[in-house]
Amino acid sequence: MSVTAAQGFTAAGIAAGIKANGNPDLALVVNHGPSLAAAGVFTSNRVKAAPVHWTEQVLRGSAVSAVVLNSGGANACTGPKGFQDTHATAEKVAATLNEHGPGGDFNAGEIAVASTGLIGVLLPMDKLLPGIETAAAALSADGGEAAAIAIKTTDSVHKTATVSQGGWTVGGMAKGAGMLAPGLATMLVVITTDADLDSATLDKALRAATRTTFDRVDSDGCMSTNDTVLLLASGASGQVPAYEDFAEAVRKVCDDLARQLIGDAEGASKDIRIEVIGALTEDDAVEVGRSIARNNLLKCAIHGEDPNWGRVLSAIGTTQAAFDPDRLNVAINDVWVCRNGSVGDDRDLVSMKDREVRITADLCNGSESAVIWGNDLTAEYVHENSAYSS
Amino acid sequence: MSVTAAQGFTAAGIAAGIKANGNPDLALVVNHGPSLAAAGVFTSNRVKAAPVHWTEQVLRGSAVSAVVLNSGGANACTGPKGFQDTHATAEKVAATLNEHGPGGDFNAGEIAVASTGLIGVLLPMDKLLPGIETAAAALSADGGEAAAIAIKTTDSVHKTATVSQGGWTVGGMAKGAGMLAPGLATMLVVITTDADLDSATLDKALRAATRTTFDRVDSDGCMSTNDTVLLLASGASGQVPAYEDFAEAVRKVCDDLARQLIGDAEGASKDIRIEVIGALTEDDAVEVGRSIARNNLLKCAIHGEDPNWGRVLSAIGTTQAAFDPDRLNVAINDVWVCRNGSVGDDRDLVSMKDREVRITADLCNGSESAVIWGNDLTAEYVHENSAYSS
Repeated sequence: MSVTAAQGFTAAGIAAGIKANGNPDLALVVNHGPSLAAAGVFTSNRVKAAPVHWTEQVLRGSAVSAVVLNSGGANACTGPKGFQDTHATAEKVAATLNEHGPGGDFNAGEIAVASTGLIGVLLPMDKLLPGIETAAAALSADGGEAAAIAIKTTDSVHKTATVSQGGWTVGGMAKGAGMLAPGLATMLVVITTDADLDSATLDKALRAATRTTFDRVDSDGCMSTNDTVLLLASGASGQVPAYEDFAEAVRKVCDDLARQLIGDAEGASKDIRIEVIGALTEDDAVEVGRSIARNNLLKCAIHGEDPNWGRVLSAIGTTQAAFDPDRLNVAINDVWVCRNGSVGDDRDLVSMKDREVRITADLCNGSESAVIWGNDLTAEYVHENSAYSS
Repeated sequence: MSVTAAQGFTAAGIAAGIKANGNPDLALVVNHGPSLAAAGVFTSNRVKAAPVHWTEQVLRGSAVSAVVLNSGGANACTGPKGFQDTHATAEKVAATLNEHGPGGDFNAGEIAVASTGLIGVLLPMDKLLPGIETAAAALSADGGEAAAIAIKTTDSVHKTATVSQGGWTVGGMAKGAGMLAPGLATMLVVITTDADLDSATLDKALRAATRTTFDRVDSDGCMSTNDTVLLLASGASGQVPAYEDFAEAVRKVCDDLARQLIGDAEGASKDIRIEVIGALTEDDAVEVGRSIARNNLLKCAIHGEDPNWGRVLSAIGTTQAAFDPDRLNVAINDVWVCRNGSVGDDRDLVSMKDREVRITADLCNGSESAVIWGNDLTAEYVHENSAYSS
């Protein structure tokens, strides 16, 4: 159901010819109101793509009437021409919706733009701009699935999630395999709701949700130039949910999509759930979890189904978190293979046949915790990313 | 010539049976003086192996009469028993040299110990201790080569380097593939000299040399628990070189060994020389270089001979260095494929057939620079590190 699960939205996904292979590559999501409230979070990479610069500006106005997303090109590191192209794309969407569209007064300053694909290549505007007309003509209240498909790049499946309760709905779509900041392979997410909430409330709920979901997925530690997560509210249900209920629904949708991202990470054969407990602060727990998730040697060991807890300790030792090396405990799939920083239970008791592998690191230094999701490092990852742009 | 190129040293390398495959696994280096001056630098990982804790203590005394090194087990994360084993190893070396050795009054507090191999496994002391007697009996003034061979783990070749001038010599041996801090696969280095210099001078020269050599090699961003670099001076040449001459000789030996480490990095098919120029500070240049060197996506692209400069910019953008994204220039093998943060010269002009790939990143924000050496990410790396402990 994706972005059209909530009332007040239409969407489309079409092939504009941006991708050489003819696959769908252009998605359009339109908010028909009555509200146009919106919020967004973006990559923290200091090298940001043109559409990120543009959409950050749009969000300052707190109103988004439509989102146009393309795969097949990131429009990052493309200089002034790249920004002009993003601007022209928003203008074209506004003009097309005003001329042929569903009614309403669209203007470019309320059109969010997101792009994904290779960095450093200008978009083929001669294909993208006509594609916007095709997409506008294809808009429908059940176009969410097609939109989710059109934003795929190296994704093997499209990703959608929906939560409904009390007469209102939160639904969304995502592409990519990674985390918000840093993130791999450009994560693009559009979430819609028909709840009637203002932009400040949306912003608060979105930031709270991404902080513990997309921000805690770490596929390969690389940070994209294009990561974008948008939350749009139409108010079409007429419902004004309590903040806690709404925030939890947004968190559930983000968590669902984030898990789908890691489950589809490039070349991965194992999903690794890293839970850090006994930390003095939540920041310590996140820093330790991230360090474990990014350790290439450990990622290789997990791939080889080797419960190599020494590599976990080695990764913990590189952090600034508060801990005593002689009090660290580590479990792999619930077997405490490391106790007090030294040899614990028999590592041969650990079975790692399943796709999901659970690592628990107890810092024994407090009561805070965090969960980070990562994945293993495989020859397929190397293959996929050494052939990507050729 | 290794550690016995300088006068006043004997060495040996033998098979004690620590490695299951019967390969050499125990090395002994003895300083016959007249001076026992020494200096050392160690991993900055907070989870340190027992021999690192021990040898840091030994170095407080500024005198090292012998170094015993074993492969086949890191003796890291082995608790109090691991430290007892290191202590017993040093005691055994001192007792053996006093009883059967070359004369002199050896005591355990002047015996440095270094170990490399799997973390979290106790050393087979029933093999190691008798091995020390075998090694002591094999000590000779041309045993440097055998010692270098005995410290190999995943190394495909042993690594030695020598610089001689004005009647004095600096020589050394290394094992591992990585950097001092962080480092991969435990880097162990022993450098000897017959120059007559005190420990403070050795320490100054060693720290200056490692800062721009071993510290700027980044094979996979992982930091070992065991990294150790020792510099021992016998004074046997009777020469007291000028500090600048000596420091440069130590730097050359370190640089030579560091390049050999990266050239033998696990599974690598490309050596990547990353030069960051135009930085406001040297720290900025090092931070940017390291970020580029560690980017898995870029490492894959280089493996695929793909001049994917977008991944270089993406890596630069994750740092805190001072730069303007719109003024970044990047060359790959001297072709400036990115100018002013955007598309530069034709990427098809870049040839990447050679093993060495040069990336130049100009931050256009100052006059400081740094060179970091890294390597590509390959399916062989994944294979080697997913099967390591099994």
